[in-house]
Amino acid sequence: MYQEELERMGRLAVAAASDLAALPTDAKRNCLLAMAKAVEDNAEVITKANAKDVDAAIAKNLTPAMVDRLTLNAERIKSMADGLRTVAGQDDPVGKVISKTVRPNGLEITKVSVPFGVIGIIYESRPNVTVDAAGICIMAGNAVILRGGSEAFNSNQVLADILNKAAIASGLPDGVVNMLPWTTHEAVTAMLKMDKYIDLVIPRGGERLIRTVTAQATMPVLKHYKGICHLYVDEECDLAKAIDIIINAKCQRPGVCNALETLLISQKILPKFAPILVKALRENKVVCHGDSQYCAYDDMAIAATQDDYFAEYLALELAIKTVEDVKEAVAHINTYGSKHSDGIISNNQENIAYFQQRVDSSCVYANASTRFTDGGQFGMGAEIGISTDKLHARGPMGADELTSYKYLICGTGQVRN
Amino acid sequence: MYQEELERMGRLAVAAASDLAALPTDAKRNCLLAMAKAVEDNAEVITKANAKDVDAAIAKNLTPAMVDRLTLNAERIKSMADGLRTVAGQDDPVGKVISKTVRPNGLEITKVSVPFGVIGIIYESRPNVTVDAAGICIMAGNAVILRGGSEAFNSNQVLADILNKAAIASGLPDGVVNMLPWTTHEAVTAMLKMDKYIDLVIPRGGERLIRTVTAQATMPVLKHYKGICHLYVDEECDLAKAIDIIINAKCQRPGVCNALETLLISQKILPKFAPILVKALRENKVVCHGDSQYCAYDDMAIAATQDDYFAEYLALELAIKTVEDVKEAVAHINTYGSKHSDGIISNNQENIAYFQQRVDSSCVYANASTRFTDGGQFGMGAEIGISTDKLHARGPMGADELTSYKYLICGTGQVRN
Repeated sequence: MYQEELERMGRLAVAAASDLAALPTDAKRNCLLAMAKAVEDNAEVITKANAKDVDAAIAKNLTPAMVDRLTLNAERIKSMADGLRTVAGQDDPVGKVISKTVRPNGLEITKVSVPFGVIGIIYESRPNVTVDAAGICIMAGNAVILRGGSEAFNSNQVLADILNKAAIASGLPDGVVNMLPWTTHEAVTAMLKMDKYIDLVIPRGGERLIRTVTAQATMPVLKHYKGICHLYVDEECDLAKAIDIIINAKCQRPGVCNALETLLISQKILPKFAPILVKALRENKVVCHGDSQYCAYDDMAIAATQDDYFAEYLALELAIKTVEDVKEAVAHINTYGSKHSDGIISNNQENIAYFQQRVDSSCVYANASTRFTDGGQFGMGAEIGISTDKLHARGPMGADELTSYKYLICGTGQVRN
Repeated sequence: MYQEELERMGRLAVAAASDLAALPTDAKRNCLLAMAKAVEDNAEVITKANAKDVDAAIAKNLTPAMVDRLTLNAERIKSMADGLRTVAGQDDPVGKVISKTVRPNGLEITKVSVPFGVIGIIYESRPNVTVDAAGICIMAGNAVILRGGSEAFNSNQVLADILNKAAIASGLPDGVVNMLPWTTHEAVTAMLKMDKYIDLVIPRGGERLIRTVTAQATMPVLKHYKGICHLYVDEECDLAKAIDIIINAKCQRPGVCNALETLLISQKILPKFAPILVKALRENKVVCHGDSQYCAYDDMAIAATQDDYFAEYLALELAIKTVEDVKEAVAHINTYGSKHSDGIISNNQENIAYFQQRVDSSCVYANASTRFTDGGQFGMGAEIGISTDKLHARGPMGADELTSYKYLICGTGQVRN
């Protein structure tokens, strides 16, 4: 049942992608602006479809937070449209000359950025991802095949339809934006075998979704599983700044992947630092899981187990461990971490250099909150997600990360000896 | 049986890689030069081990060509050592600042190239790959776990041991160069599950080996399956140059992946071009599989089937097809090709631009032989292989392609609002 429709969609997307790859920047920008206008013009249709999803979510007793994430109101619809306009204002990531050489035999070799082709995005819950993902993929010259979550089914169908029609109206071929008309696991499984049509898959959601996608996909996957982010308080540091950074990284938005999960403290600074730390964490209602050295200063702390050091709490909980020095801190992070975002708080340049060089993570901080790991904060404009892989893209992924490259070689009849 | 030794090797390699990643350029260069000297100094030990492999190959009735590929003599040993010296003379691909920005809040974000960590290489037959692959991986700051083919078992064991000992003598930790002490399929399968220790696998060999590795590996794989390379002779072109390029691409070394396999000819030029083409192909003893239009000019040609257009002959055989125009040529290549190397022979700039933009291959040529797809020819120095994937690396892969990147973010206490 899925196969036939997926094949049709795949062929359509590949053909659309071939035209899209050849489009000048202005044509892509006009398409994105037309999409933004279409989203706003169809606000009523969108809210109507969204209401069905919201009603179903309430009937299914989803938590108020989940219902809120699902809900589209006038403000959020405008924000989706503005997101498209922001992407339209970015530099074109396609056609950039990465390098150019002329070989002794006269061959001109130009390495130039090109779109991947067709990108599959598999995501959960929030319907704004439909618009954000389509926008950034199109700016990078890629067609998309989307599979949204079941909760947002009606919203997603309507949004994708509006986007694809706006693309056609602006002169693009049919098939630039495709949305699977099913949300079953079987449909996802079938989609993940379409390596003939889909060049790259990006899953967005919980670790379970991402592991399933990675295990099943026959095409490359860009992903991040989780964020077990660390901060290490070095023996030489500004204690007040350390507190500010720790509280920000842990408390400003605890439910996200770049929030702090484990705090490492140099044993040399612990006696001086622990009392002010305990006070700050209590004021911010953070539940602490500490080792015995830390717990000696915090009678409300729970004794940490091995599991705590592998935990992504995504809540106001924090694992705390005392370490001998920067070396032990780095060894701990490279063993328990998730290669996401980790930082050192220190005034010792040698320790900072050691930490930044040796911690094997996508983003390694000195004296700043891990919460800055984000495409917008990095100045990338729109972001499609964060990668904790090492192949191709690492850390926040913007439109540039949605391109590959090829070599164009121009000769005058050269042959090889 | 394999698990325990692989775990030990993996831990050793990860620890070595962590030190290797932090080494200054000169230390890596000295290590490679020490390895080169060790290879030459141990020429006798190497030839002795190699003689065992050669004797076994002769006893197993391997073809003379295969025995020759396996054989190491004084000249080839010197050539391996010189290869290491060449790599030592290249730019360091690690520590390159890819971009640097200062955000409005004062955060300094530096994107810098870093090694992958541990690279697994799985290859067949020729023992020089042991030395070449180790050299280029080390220059890019990576430790290697190698698994060579059974034919070269004795040569490979000795070579890897010499390289690792030379690395230790030059001040590197044990475990920079590791060679599996088995050549069974089960050992490969076990190695391909070591994603905890191996960051990237590169298979080198026939399509079957590569498909097996890709299907089994739980870590990322960089690969190319095959090279079904095309040339398209456009209606406006220099016929004598076209003949030179075609004969070079097909005949100069027919057994390699960048050799020509299918020739596409514009129907407008066929009547004028076919007679001189038939003559040149016959002189070079090329067996032709043509469509009916071509066969009308070549009474020795065999009628081409659909299979011929999917064939990687790796021999003096050529599939030939007449097409209406550049559009049909591009459509054919994108359907039957392998995303490797394809070219147009034309004086029409518009057709060249269309072809180079629309052909979805790693290397797209205009008026030159496809045989130039090679790290050395591209000026990369040493090459670890060619990628027909689109993720991370495309086309010839040099030391730069054996690096990832990370972001170093330096602050003065910044927190996120």
